[in-house]
Amino acid sequence: MENFVWKCPTRLVFGKDVIGTVADFVQSENGTRVLLVYGGGSIKKSGVYKTVTDSLKNAGIEFVELSGVQPNPRLSLVLEGIDTVRREKIDFILAVGGGSVIDTCKAISFGDAVPSDKDIWDDYFMVKGAPIPKGINVGVVLTIPAAGSEMSNSCVITNEKTGYKRGVNHENNYPAFAVLDPQVCYTLPPYQTACGAADMLSHMMERYFTPTENVDYTDALLEGAMRTVLQYGPLACKNPTVYEYREQLMLAGTLAHNNLFGCGRVQDWASHWMEHELSGLYDIAHGAGLAIMTPAWMRYVYKTKVSRFVQFAVNVMGSSMSIADEDKIALDGIARLEDWFKSIGLPVRLSEVNINGDRIDDMVKQCLDGGRGVAGGFKKLYAEDLAAIYRIAL
Amino acid sequence: MENFVWKCPTRLVFGKDVIGTVADFVQSENGTRVLLVYGGGSIKKSGVYKTVTDSLKNAGIEFVELSGVQPNPRLSLVLEGIDTVRREKIDFILAVGGGSVIDTCKAISFGDAVPSDKDIWDDYFMVKGAPIPKGINVGVVLTIPAAGSEMSNSCVITNEKTGYKRGVNHENNYPAFAVLDPQVCYTLPPYQTACGAADMLSHMMERYFTPTENVDYTDALLEGAMRTVLQYGPLACKNPTVYEYREQLMLAGTLAHNNLFGCGRVQDWASHWMEHELSGLYDIAHGAGLAIMTPAWMRYVYKTKVSRFVQFAVNVMGSSMSIADEDKIALDGIARLEDWFKSIGLPVRLSEVNINGDRIDDMVKQCLDGGRGVAGGFKKLYAEDLAAIYRIAL
Repeated sequence: MENFVWKCPTRLVFGKDVIGTVADFVQSENGTRVLLVYGGGSIKKSGVYKTVTDSLKNAGIEFVELSGVQPNPRLSLVLEGIDTVRREKIDFILAVGGGSVIDTCKAISFGDAVPSDKDIWDDYFMVKGAPIPKGINVGVVLTIPAAGSEMSNSCVITNEKTGYKRGVNHENNYPAFAVLDPQVCYTLPPYQTACGAADMLSHMMERYFTPTENVDYTDALLEGAMRTVLQYGPLACKNPTVYEYREQLMLAGTLAHNNLFGCGRVQDWASHWMEHELSGLYDIAHGAGLAIMTPAWMRYVYKTKVSRFVQFAVNVMGSSMSIADEDKIALDGIARLEDWFKSIGLPVRLSEVNINGDRIDDMVKQCLDGGRGVAGGFKKLYAEDLAAIYRIAL
Repeated sequence: MENFVWKCPTRLVFGKDVIGTVADFVQSENGTRVLLVYGGGSIKKSGVYKTVTDSLKNAGIEFVELSGVQPNPRLSLVLEGIDTVRREKIDFILAVGGGSVIDTCKAISFGDAVPSDKDIWDDYFMVKGAPIPKGINVGVVLTIPAAGSEMSNSCVITNEKTGYKRGVNHENNYPAFAVLDPQVCYTLPPYQTACGAADMLSHMMERYFTPTENVDYTDALLEGAMRTVLQYGPLACKNPTVYEYREQLMLAGTLAHNNLFGCGRVQDWASHWMEHELSGLYDIAHGAGLAIMTPAWMRYVYKTKVSRFVQFAVNVMGSSMSIADEDKIALDGIARLEDWFKSIGLPVRLSEVNINGDRIDDMVKQCLDGGRGVAGGFKKLYAEDLAAIYRIAL
């Protein structure tokens, strides 16, 4: 293992009917005047909006609303939120939604705390490793299990003017709390459930495919976690209102990305980077983009360390060790993963979402911009490698 | 799953040569005047004492020492520590040692914050669920991986006047940070390494044996974690200076007890409770006591839900599903566990540590005292059950 520091201070509040207690957790973080951030009308239809606002009102907590967060959340709404926080003297930000809403809130929080001579986009999102300032606290009521942002240090925003989608990771990004009731997932359509499952699985795979020789403790945890998503993802798609399926998937999604499973290891993230360019340019669902890019990435890199792909095939995907040679076992695991994506209704080729190869060069260029130069921890990938992977995905 | 709240704010600092940076973490928690707590001379022999005190001195941090913490740490030293904190105007407590040292520090911290009309022992340790006040911060430099106290909310102290050993769990007990360098384990004797492995494995088993019907995500994590201890425990006993073995075991021990693996499930803890009476009365090593009590507990309770013991036997201990009937598979798993304890030099019967049945009645009585009345979450155990389990262990 590499040396590491891990701290995840988010309070996880999980279970049936816990959303009505959200005001207790706002108050325990000294929130008195809340910016309530959400997307469109789905939280009003589902009743989550009423449960949250009733809880705040009953506790005497004032709130101001900021709605209209879109998937692949926009920088412009972040800037609007920062203005609102300052104008309305907000001291707590409550995200009610999925990853896009949560990331918008994280960016508003630290954006409000950025020194006046710095620019939130140019000096933080476009600069890898910039130290994120600690802003006012963010709390979460999660409605879509997928991004894992509710318990992560990550924040991904799209600059709709430049088409760049960029993430920043920093300890100050952890929410103060995350309230999760699996019952809110009952109304999620199967496609959205499937996209969520693909995203969580990807957060695990990005950490699993590490260049180390050792098979270690974290592998054992990750393999159990991945098998859980493979098992419960399809069940939740087919039976949307079974609590047990929803709770297993929701917990798996949250723990997938708090980086416990990334401790002490070089991680990959090339599939995520390449997907960010896809969804940044074409606005497709992140989970769908991952279902396309991940198998393509795997086919391009597996020979770099075939033993790890054999381990993945056998311990996670259920491939048989009796297959004749290592390459074949590795490819069998990749094929099984692709079949699993298809089984839950996800695309596995760019052509299925009407994307052709016209803008591969643009995506490759953007992917390596901002001082990155190279992608991937499992195998270092340069421009020609990324172009080849996009072409495999066509 | 049951509803749950989980928060583990401890900063984990892990890897080679990290102990020399301890002053940075004390300072980040605003510590300026430290109570440095340790056991006997082992940290001086190993060089850890010098590394820690050099780090503090170089950073200009003053410290006062409190040494002499014994295994099964004593209430009297806790009271002495509280006096020292007040007299010396201490604002940070640094534990350098294993579970006994850490638990002593946790008790000093909250004991210092107990209201003047309350007694730390009678009103907190002897009262189940008493709300622990938040005291000054505790940091840890871990030298013995076993108890998991470095990242847990648990604190276990022995009142040497009454012979009671009691634990309290509360969020305010989490250390602010834990610094772990696996190299400090190189000098641990095999027996102590084995006792540590037994303790971590027990922290996992106490959470694994839950009365639920479902096989879930947490099972998958726990099974991976248990297999890791079963694999690396014997390797570390036999090859004490191989970094890879020590790091896997040390990380496993820390994550075994931060209660991530206990989220949303009824846990057992009967083996731990019964062992606490053993080591409270006879002062044997906690890990050795667990190696004796756990298989005895298993043999007494397995028929309550044989399916879970079959799952344990097959997924963790490597028993074959082809064995004729469920009871036999379950018993095979228990026998394999016992063999594993023996293989690392641990006792599996009370007679091996020269304890006979004379004081079984005392231990049973003490075990259920303090308003407990019943032990165990997997199967509720009353006085006659506990006496029977102690007799099985003879």
